Amino acid sequence: MGTFDIQILGIGSIPSPLNLNEVQGDQVFTYVSDDQRILLDTSLKRYQKAKDHDEPPLSLERAGPREKIYFNPDETSAAIVTCGGLCPGVNNVIRSVVMGLHYFYGVKRILGIPYGYEGFIPSFGHDFVDLTPEHVKDIHEFGGTILGSSRGGQSVEAMADTIERENINLIFAIGGDGTLKGAREIGAELLQRGANAVVAGIPKTIDNDINLMERSFGYETAFNVANPIIRDAHNEARGAYNGISIIKLMGRDSGFIAASAALSMPVVNFVLIPEMDFSLRGDQGFLQCLKDRLDNRKHAVIVVAEGAGQNLFEGAEKQKDASGNVLHNDIGLLLKSKVDEYFKSIGYRVTIKYLDPSYIIRSAPANANDSIFASRLAHHAVHGAMAGKTNFVVGLINGRFAYFPISTVANQRQKIDLNGDLWFSVLQSTGQPFVMK
Amino acid sequence: MGTFDIQILGIGSIPSPLNLNEVQGDQVFTYVSDDQRILLDTSLKRYQKAKDHDEPPLSLERAGPREKIYFNPDETSAAIVTCGGLCPGVNNVIRSVVMGLHYFYGVKRILGIPYGYEGFIPSFGHDFVDLTPEHVKDIHEFGGTILGSSRGGQSVEAMADTIERENINLIFAIGGDGTLKGAREIGAELLQRGANAVVAGIPKTIDNDINLMERSFGYETAFNVANPIIRDAHNEARGAYNGISIIKLMGRDSGFIAASAALSMPVVNFVLIPEMDFSLRGDQGFLQCLKDRLDNRKHAVIVVAEGAGQNLFEGAEKQKDASGNVLHNDIGLLLKSKVDEYFKSIGYRVTIKYLDPSYIIRSAPANANDSIFASRLAHHAVHGAMAGKTNFVVGLINGRFAYFPISTVANQRQKIDLNGDLWFSVLQSTGQPFVMK
Amino acid sequence: MGTFDIQILGIGSIPSPLNLNEVQGDQVFTYVSDDQRILLDTSLKRYQKAKDHDEPPLSLERAGPREKIYFNPDETSAAIVTCGGLCPGVNNVIRSVVMGLHYFYGVKRILGIPYGYEGFIPSFGHDFVDLTPEHVKDIHEFGGTILGSSRGGQSVEAMADTIERENINLIFAIGGDGTLKGAREIGAELLQRGANAVVAGIPKTIDNDINLMERSFGYETAFNVANPIIRDAHNEARGAYNGISIIKLMGRDSGFIAASAALSMPVVNFVLIPEMDFSLRGDQGFLQCLKDRLDNRKHAVIVVAEGAGQNLFEGAEKQKDASGNVLHNDIGLLLKSKVDEYFKSIGYRVTIKYLDPSYIIRSAPANANDSIFASRLAHHAVHGAMAGKTNFVVGLINGRFAYFPISTVANQRQKIDLNGDLWFSVLQSTGQPFVMK
Amino acid sequence: MGTFDIQILGIGSIPSPLNLNEVQGDQVFTYVSDDQRILLDTSLKRYQKAKDHDEPPLSLERAGPREKIYFNPDETSAAIVTCGGLCPGVNNVIRSVVMGLHYFYGVKRILGIPYGYEGFIPSFGHDFVDLTPEHVKDIHEFGGTILGSSRGGQSVEAMADTIERENINLIFAIGGDGTLKGAREIGAELLQRGANAVVAGIPKTIDNDINLMERSFGYETAFNVANPIIRDAHNEARGAYNGISIIKLMGRDSGFIAASAALSMPVVNFVLIPEMDFSLRGDQGFLQCLKDRLDNRKHAVIVVAEGAGQNLFEGAEKQKDASGNVLHNDIGLLLKSKVDEYFKSIGYRVTIKYLDPSYIIRSAPANANDSIFASRLAHHAVHGAMAGKTNFVVGLINGRFAYFPISTVANQRQKIDLNGDLWFSVLQSTGQPFVMK
Repeated sequence: MGTFDIQILGIGSIPSPLNLNEVQGDQVFTYVSDDQRILLDTSLKRYQKAKDHDEPPLSLERAGPREKIYFNPDETSAAIVTCGGLCPGVNNVIRSVVMGLHYFYGVKRILGIPYGYEGFIPSFGHDFVDLTPEHVKDIHEFGGTILGSSRGGQSVEAMADTIERENINLIFAIGGDGTLKGAREIGAELLQRGANAVVAGIPKTIDNDINLMERSFGYETAFNVANPIIRDAHNEARGAYNGISIIKLMGRDSGFIAASAALSMPVVNFVLIPEMDFSLRGDQGFLQCLKDRLDNRKHAVIVVAEGAGQNLFEGAEKQKDASGNVLHNDIGLLLKSKVDEYFKSIGYRVTIKYLDPSYIIRSAPANANDSIFASRLAHHAVHGAMAGKTNFVVGLINGRFAYFPISTVANQRQKIDLNGDLWFSVLQSTGQPFVMK
Repeated sequence: MGTFDIQILGIGSIPSPLNLNEVQGDQVFTYVSDDQRILLDTSLKRYQKAKDHDEPPLSLERAGPREKIYFNPDETSAAIVTCGGLCPGVNNVIRSVVMGLHYFYGVKRILGIPYGYEGFIPSFGHDFVDLTPEHVKDIHEFGGTILGSSRGGQSVEAMADTIERENINLIFAIGGDGTLKGAREIGAELLQRGANAVVAGIPKTIDNDINLMERSFGYETAFNVANPIIRDAHNEARGAYNGISIIKLMGRDSGFIAASAALSMPVVNFVLIPEMDFSLRGDQGFLQCLKDRLDNRKHAVIVVAEGAGQNLFEGAEKQKDASGNVLHNDIGLLLKSKVDEYFKSIGYRVTIKYLDPSYIIRSAPANANDSIFASRLAHHAVHGAMAGKTNFVVGLINGRFAYFPISTVANQRQKIDLNGDLWFSVLQSTGQPFVMK
Repeated sequence: MGTFDIQILGIGSIPSPLNLNEVQGDQVFTYVSDDQRILLDTSLKRYQKAKDHDEPPLSLERAGPREKIYFNPDETSAAIVTCGGLCPGVNNVIRSVVMGLHYFYGVKRILGIPYGYEGFIPSFGHDFVDLTPEHVKDIHEFGGTILGSSRGGQSVEAMADTIERENINLIFAIGGDGTLKGAREIGAELLQRGANAVVAGIPKTIDNDINLMERSFGYETAFNVANPIIRDAHNEARGAYNGISIIKLMGRDSGFIAASAALSMPVVNFVLIPEMDFSLRGDQGFLQCLKDRLDNRKHAVIVVAEGAGQNLFEGAEKQKDASGNVLHNDIGLLLKSKVDEYFKSIGYRVTIKYLDPSYIIRSAPANANDSIFASRLAHHAVHGAMAGKTNFVVGLINGRFAYFPISTVANQRQKIDLNGDLWFSVLQSTGQPFVMK
Repeated sequence: MGTFDIQILGIGSIPSPLNLNEVQGDQVFTYVSDDQRILLDTSLKRYQKAKDHDEPPLSLERAGPREKIYFNPDETSAAIVTCGGLCPGVNNVIRSVVMGLHYFYGVKRILGIPYGYEGFIPSFGHDFVDLTPEHVKDIHEFGGTILGSSRGGQSVEAMADTIERENINLIFAIGGDGTLKGAREIGAELLQRGANAVVAGIPKTIDNDINLMERSFGYETAFNVANPIIRDAHNEARGAYNGISIIKLMGRDSGFIAASAALSMPVVNFVLIPEMDFSLRGDQGFLQCLKDRLDNRKHAVIVVAEGAGQNLFEGAEKQKDASGNVLHNDIGLLLKSKVDEYFKSIGYRVTIKYLDPSYIIRSAPANANDSIFASRLAHHAVHGAMAGKTNFVVGLINGRFAYFPISTVANQRQKIDLNGDLWFSVLQSTGQPFVMK
């Protein structure tokens, strides 16, 4: 169980200003204690196995306000930083961190760090932004991040220097894999220096690929925005004889957006995701399957995740973005040209439409459900940080908010299980073969 | 564990036409066996308690396709019936039941029962509708139900007569509490008659108040549609000096829609739900709290669930609708008049706007996430029914689809725990006092 | 032609800072001169009649920037006031007046008058708001009015006193009939006092009933928002046996919103508007027509404008709102009860759903087309006011922006011509009889 | 005036089944006679010039139902064909032509021609579709065209052969420039053959570039759909240091969509359209202007019409699509690379996001206002065709529906007047210089 323990800066001794109590059933929320834990695995078999072998099952610390807090609000300063690509809900998180710190705990000095980790480095010359309730009250209406973002890391030492110099005690880092790794390094550095500062992460990945977590904010908005785009791409396909619409969606390493978008708008005939192997040519290959579909129905709709089919780029060089993410070769355009080439080669008339709505999706404002989720994540990050916890992220596990050590989530990506329920639903909905190769 | 066992008409002996296998990791989904079960409670404490006292924990049968099915598709007929009030996603369920029966299992005779349980009673004179993939392919784009609906029960004997006379083997009942009770009675009657027929329920309640289930389809769409309405009601409130907007939302016995809608659009100052007690008058009463808000900010937004504040209707008679649901007195209009009366009585100028968007919400098409959810529920209902299971409903528990005996979900309503996380989030977001009385 | 002449405070002598020129075809806009005029009537017959009798046709002064302006921007202050009910686009108008004054002409002191004409009266104690580009840059994203509004007039003398005391030179009044009458009185009073101040009106009426003008801002958004509500109300109607949906839309004296909303969503069977007479009972009455529809199709959708059927309230007292508008009796609820009563009386089973989305519609943000329109009206108001014109409003006539004397538009309401094209289109689309009485 | 006369197959002698009358003011629409005409030019100056020189002004025949019709509905067959690229509203036109023919006039045989003009050519092997009210009643909910479309012309003789062989009397052609030219040729051929058939066009161009007409259906929906995409692209730009968003919108020869979309979402800083000349380099060139913007505000939003800046492709070959439209080189990607190149060359850090939402826009369903417009165009086309008119299109002129000879609209494209009101509004809204070269 050790690997899921949360580090703390020190044991809280200050009574929480939330004024809750320990009374059950009085209509007043009860403080959460550190020993309330949530099981990771909910299958009866795993429970029985744990019981039979007396192996305690894996569990996570439940998130929520603690009775004693570590930081004295009057003397506490906070900073919020947003990194990496846009994702619906970032402004909701910022807003709720500010509101939570200000109204729940009375922390009044809250700094917005501009343009990601860069903003901590003086030489970039970016000015901090003072974040107040007045400043943030309407920002949930907008996509993007009011703080600006950037990719890539910065010197951990230089960032820690700024944090110490500016007397920042709470750092809220909103970002993906790379950002969280950076956050952990900053947190470790601060601990080592004996700085009076903690680091809390709010995982941001539109791809829904945070390890262990059932959901990341922005992901649902993503396939919700993609939904009518697919509906209309279907109309494009039907509007031409043997019309083919190819929609490229986000999903560098995991195909969750593609899978869910296709499930939500059941006009899709093929979903191609990074987790699956497929061939283009051959009797069972994708192109033959596509031709069969056209023979039968005269139109087809294909959803392809950006990271799918990387095996098709043999010999091509791999590039990385500033955050160190491998930049995949563009499967969308490749697929388009391969489809075109194939049907030309067999003298089969088709019309191909290619759609790449990525920026439209990631810059959209959060939908209602993601707004709630982003807001609740933010509140729980505030509760954890005020209690002195550090190097943790907030997430959802089996319907409950919990604290995860950053190390458990930032090392591995969540992927679609090709043997699992979700993918089977996709195959049932599309009618595509289990295997195309 | 007995209470969560699913009844079956007979053990399946026909190999499933799905052609899945038992191989793990081959990218082909593996049949689900009846002994795969999901824990209900995921707290570590409950695990330890169960272990210490050797009490097996409560668990539910995992949903999914079985290796052997009970019904021979060639000789099987199905019927779909939709009852009660509208809810986003009903057409998605209908569509996916039809597609699942037709394409997965090869069941070709699928009848749509018009106007709810009435449609089973010949004297109403409604004609059955033949449901084919061609007929249902676009219906997910529309709110409502293409089959029509009605409230209230019908003679169980007469319905069973029709089912037997028409050689219907699979009955899919989409409806709420009352509908599911009716479905259980039909199922029991058919079992007793020795009819070759099973009954599967797909729980429909926009209020999200199905016992044990973490989510019902249509509920998320409901607060998603309410979200911009609240945003604009906020503009109405701000548009007048001491402007007050009161938005009545659905929620007869449970305030989930009101709570989630308010959380999703953080401009709401007060949420009133059926689960809570509150007083209007008095130093700590709602009206005083409202006045305090106006003193400070010159406008206020109130979300009230339709079933809230029933204690305010002392002496008024209770009425029931055709389904036997208690018809609550209209809290929205009462609240409006009480607010008006109060501020007039103290010579305090206010402008009140009252919004009741109920029909706009319930007749909307499902959003992307509900579309997926409705579709997957339908597929799992098909798998269960084809395997010969009866008197069951499909639902989600800790992120997994499971089969629940109808009896476990139709007797009690899920409610918001006033001591719990969700309600605490609402109080944090709105700033409203824990108790107003 | 005299009646359409615009009053001016004085002939402009200051070269416009816009730096346009008089060169045609150089890709630089050319100043508009006062003698550019637009014909009101575009029928060839009217031309021939005018020609034969040497009667000059009616025409209006074209709106746009003048080469010489009257006010010296450095010494000019402006005020913006919004009155009456909400309407989509008010914030767009405010934003564009501010941007136009600030960036085109360099007027830097712009005051927002809070809560309508009240804001001019010191005893109400409202503080002016300083309007800058920074302050207004995002407000077009929101419905409502950031300035607040109120109904009803105030003392013209007291308002003029404030205007003089505060050295306000340009007053932009955004409002309906009553507001424009008030604006004209203020303008007249200022002229009489010899004040260095002009009054420009931007007509606001969601009902599209401004005399002479082909369109008012917010109106198109209104029926655009109503469109899916009607679609879903249709689903409600189809969801029940003999289901009837009644949707009440805005339209106190003119049925434009009801007519256009019904035309835009061709599932409506009856449209009832203030302009038409109809009876409920009788062989040709509305109720009989409704029954015929149900006999044939088992459901019906009715759109009713709030001011329709006032003859049905014989004997009921007329009330007025604070703006002096006659408050109509609620036709929606009356209709609902009459329909219910009638079908009960003949033992005919129906289910009635009643929707009143008024506040949802009027508080919505402007759609794209209204955003453009609101913005262009605002710019033209700024051009006119800077040129010293007063007691005018801006509007569209035959596709061109023009200046209208307030007196020509504020005395009479535009109505749907029951003999005209638009109404005929409604009858064609719905299939409703020409006359129901 | 001759050039605007409409050809007729023969003078109508059959009383219209619409049963209207000639009584004014009876609440029943009055038949329109051929001598009701609408002026093209509405300026007073043009009127005076016409009058002084006794030159009758240009005018168009008013659209609407005629008292006598030419075709006997019982013996009349109609065909509908849709050609060219998708455009919001095509299904609304199809629906309203069918409803108008069926319900107004009683024409029961209505054929849908599949995949554009191809559908008339037997060798393609496409089957006609029977269009009935039941078949088309819900199609307005969907983008695209239920008939399918294709580009390019077919043999006029072969098409006329099919028309004669199938006894088709009314041909409704929905398409752009090329389609209308084709329609005119078919119409001429049919006239020459003495066939009992007329051709009516409903102009379709999302670009709004039909000569003489103030509006084409789908155009407003186009910029309405582009509106939030631009809003979110603005968030993308703000989300990065010196972030630049480039949005490519449709507009092959005319920049109406780009101009209107930018006006409707006033966060755009530069609009580049086909009508304007601009240079990239140089002190006054676009790149310098862009750098100035970034220096001041750290982000920029650029909207570029697909046909803009063709002078930048010197030496590149011109290609044509199957309809004969010149295929422009892709200015969007060129601009992106030029911007990137420039800022790299001066060592100025920027982040560029490129959005091309074309297919998302053109396949969207029509918004409310376009739905009305498409429907009314269709009704007027039906009225005209039934009256025996041929080789005409329906359009709007100064707020009135009129009939235009195809020849007057298909030879020249409407363009934005760079000296005119609309473009000036764009420059005012964006703050971009009049000239960038």
